[in-house]
Amino acid sequence: MDFDALFATQLNQLKEEGNYRIFAELERECGQHPKAQCHGEDGKRQITVWCSNDYLGMGQHPKVVERMQEVIGQCGAGAGGTRNISGTNHHHRLLEDELADLHGKEDALLFTSGYVSNWAALSTLGARLRDCVILSDELNHASMIEGMRHSRAKVVIWKHNDPADLEAKLAALPANCPKIVAFESVYSMDGDIAPIAEICDVAEKYGAMTYLDEVHAVGMYGPRGAGIAERDGVMDRVTLIEGTLGKAFGVVGGYITGSKTLCDFIRSFASGFIFTTALPPAVAAAAQTSIRHLKESSAERDLQKVRVAQLRQMLDRAGIPHIDNPSHIIPVMIKDPVKCRMLSDYLMDEFGIYVQPINYPTVPKGTERLRFTPSPNHSVDDLRHLVSALEVLWKQCAISQAVA
Amino acid sequence: MDFDALFATQLNQLKEEGNYRIFAELERECGQHPKAQCHGEDGKRQITVWCSNDYLGMGQHPKVVERMQEVIGQCGAGAGGTRNISGTNHHHRLLEDELADLHGKEDALLFTSGYVSNWAALSTLGARLRDCVILSDELNHASMIEGMRHSRAKVVIWKHNDPADLEAKLAALPANCPKIVAFESVYSMDGDIAPIAEICDVAEKYGAMTYLDEVHAVGMYGPRGAGIAERDGVMDRVTLIEGTLGKAFGVVGGYITGSKTLCDFIRSFASGFIFTTALPPAVAAAAQTSIRHLKESSAERDLQKVRVAQLRQMLDRAGIPHIDNPSHIIPVMIKDPVKCRMLSDYLMDEFGIYVQPINYPTVPKGTERLRFTPSPNHSVDDLRHLVSALEVLWKQCAISQAVA
Repeated sequence: MDFDALFATQLNQLKEEGNYRIFAELERECGQHPKAQCHGEDGKRQITVWCSNDYLGMGQHPKVVERMQEVIGQCGAGAGGTRNISGTNHHHRLLEDELADLHGKEDALLFTSGYVSNWAALSTLGARLRDCVILSDELNHASMIEGMRHSRAKVVIWKHNDPADLEAKLAALPANCPKIVAFESVYSMDGDIAPIAEICDVAEKYGAMTYLDEVHAVGMYGPRGAGIAERDGVMDRVTLIEGTLGKAFGVVGGYITGSKTLCDFIRSFASGFIFTTALPPAVAAAAQTSIRHLKESSAERDLQKVRVAQLRQMLDRAGIPHIDNPSHIIPVMIKDPVKCRMLSDYLMDEFGIYVQPINYPTVPKGTERLRFTPSPNHSVDDLRHLVSALEVLWKQCAISQAVA
Repeated sequence: MDFDALFATQLNQLKEEGNYRIFAELERECGQHPKAQCHGEDGKRQITVWCSNDYLGMGQHPKVVERMQEVIGQCGAGAGGTRNISGTNHHHRLLEDELADLHGKEDALLFTSGYVSNWAALSTLGARLRDCVILSDELNHASMIEGMRHSRAKVVIWKHNDPADLEAKLAALPANCPKIVAFESVYSMDGDIAPIAEICDVAEKYGAMTYLDEVHAVGMYGPRGAGIAERDGVMDRVTLIEGTLGKAFGVVGGYITGSKTLCDFIRSFASGFIFTTALPPAVAAAAQTSIRHLKESSAERDLQKVRVAQLRQMLDRAGIPHIDNPSHIIPVMIKDPVKCRMLSDYLMDEFGIYVQPINYPTVPKGTERLRFTPSPNHSVDDLRHLVSALEVLWKQCAISQAVA
């Protein structure tokens, strides 16, 4: 059987739809964030990254970089095993204590990624809690969806950010089955924010536990950077908070926080936790340094908010439509995968501006977009350059539409 | 609903069975492998690790350590995004090229872990190849099992390392459905090795693609450390080779290698690849350095083989039973979870020897074991110390059995 031919058929379909993905090959330059070198056919050149999830540039913070180098010198590169078989390092424990403190919980548990933390935690909860029903916001991330799917538990989808619909769905379920309300705080593609307190009100009324993904919020919201639940003063009402070390904290890895028993339960039964090599000790130490810094320093958060507000204002003045939302994510809707790729290529080629086209399956078909994430390290000149480039593009589009 | 009580009930059951896991909290000391500090209630003390998957100590090789530190200085800590959205770094591409070359394949694809590479690749293949049947060796790793399960494809289990049973199972399937034969080379818990050539004979006869997990072999077998398929001269007959950067290569991460179309297919459709932050560039660079070193140097492999043979001989002389196998893994069967934990604790407390008890679910209940993995960095004195400690234990057990 010609397997390559089977694969090629499906790849060709992606290409025909305009959904075939081409990765930009970057070379990040420590200390230059958001600038990076971009490798192309003609060598490399400096560009400005406008779609990084290293939201605050912490991946290049001198304290984080130095700490990671230092612990590599002390402990070596890898952990050397799974958490159970020789892979638990002192730095993992220190980081888990730091995370528990960050979210005001009894304990925390590290995973190799945010994806794995969602997948492993939800699949374990759903599979091991007898007759469990998971109530899932309709826009939850792929990692949560795959975890719920893997659990084979019953999943009920509720309308995005709609506590009334959640309540209707909860009320329709038997009183005595375990219920998990799973949702995110900041939704990364539209940048909208969940009404956590109202969702907790409903969940508590029906005795459901709450599972909150804060990956696009940790480091950036709340007085100590613990996320939206901290900002809203409701951390203690959420049963399980999941987060990442790979976005605003600038490193890599994921985690959950909650009661000691909850963390022990996931630790003891989650295949995706048990059967995998632990994160390098230096990664854990670097992440801990980043978290500690952002617990104490609001400078990065504050400047990010300024830059986000400035970019929105400049886009408004230039007449460039963008989704209004209360977060740091600025989506500009294109609504066509081929156009979205074309605009992205044009910005890169002509202006040295890198913003990846966001196409299916990351967003639904027909909602393709450019998604800008201003960081505290983007200068006002960077903002001006971006907006003037978009103005040029928008004028050209208007002309081509008038001619067509 | 009291969720903690539900969790506690299942945790208590684990404890009653003797399967509750307690992690040893280590602090690896760069350059001292296999020595490490172990944190306990009374502070920390130096111990010898006998169950590390950093099989060759490459996680502490000066070239690997220096390269990782260097690239952190150049690129910072994290990748800053998913592979698609600003997270692809030049060092990822270099590593993928290195891996393709290692295994003699057209291309390679990186994942955040070996677990994720198996889970994502098998779940994507099984789900997207219409009417696909996966033929799985009965002792395949949890990550492969979860990937197959997630795919919802039909899975047929064949007897461990038995090409005749595989053939019987293949012959019973319709001729025109896509078939994937999934197996490992070195099975990590028994240390036995698959007859890859014979399995390929059968797979080819029935037009099946072959999926080979070499995580416990890469770095350690074959003239360039590409694994058992290289040693046996059959790499080109295997459709997909999966491996890890977290064991003999000493860092963290996983990968697949195969045809360009195959890698592109997984790259384009695998949720566990698409929706997760890329590995730190410095991790990729460190892994590449480790692979390049082991392509050229056989010294580590050769000395490991010497130490493995020496330990087997010394165990035989001391009358300590161990599973005979052709690999670097030396299992000493205990066959009881409580005793296994007790022996492990005793070795640690009395002799500073750390070997984790291997209990369910890593191995089937009733096959609990201590699993020793000698590295080139274990000295002859380390071997002698281990065997004399085991002799003391075995004598004590004999006495207690005589008294009982």
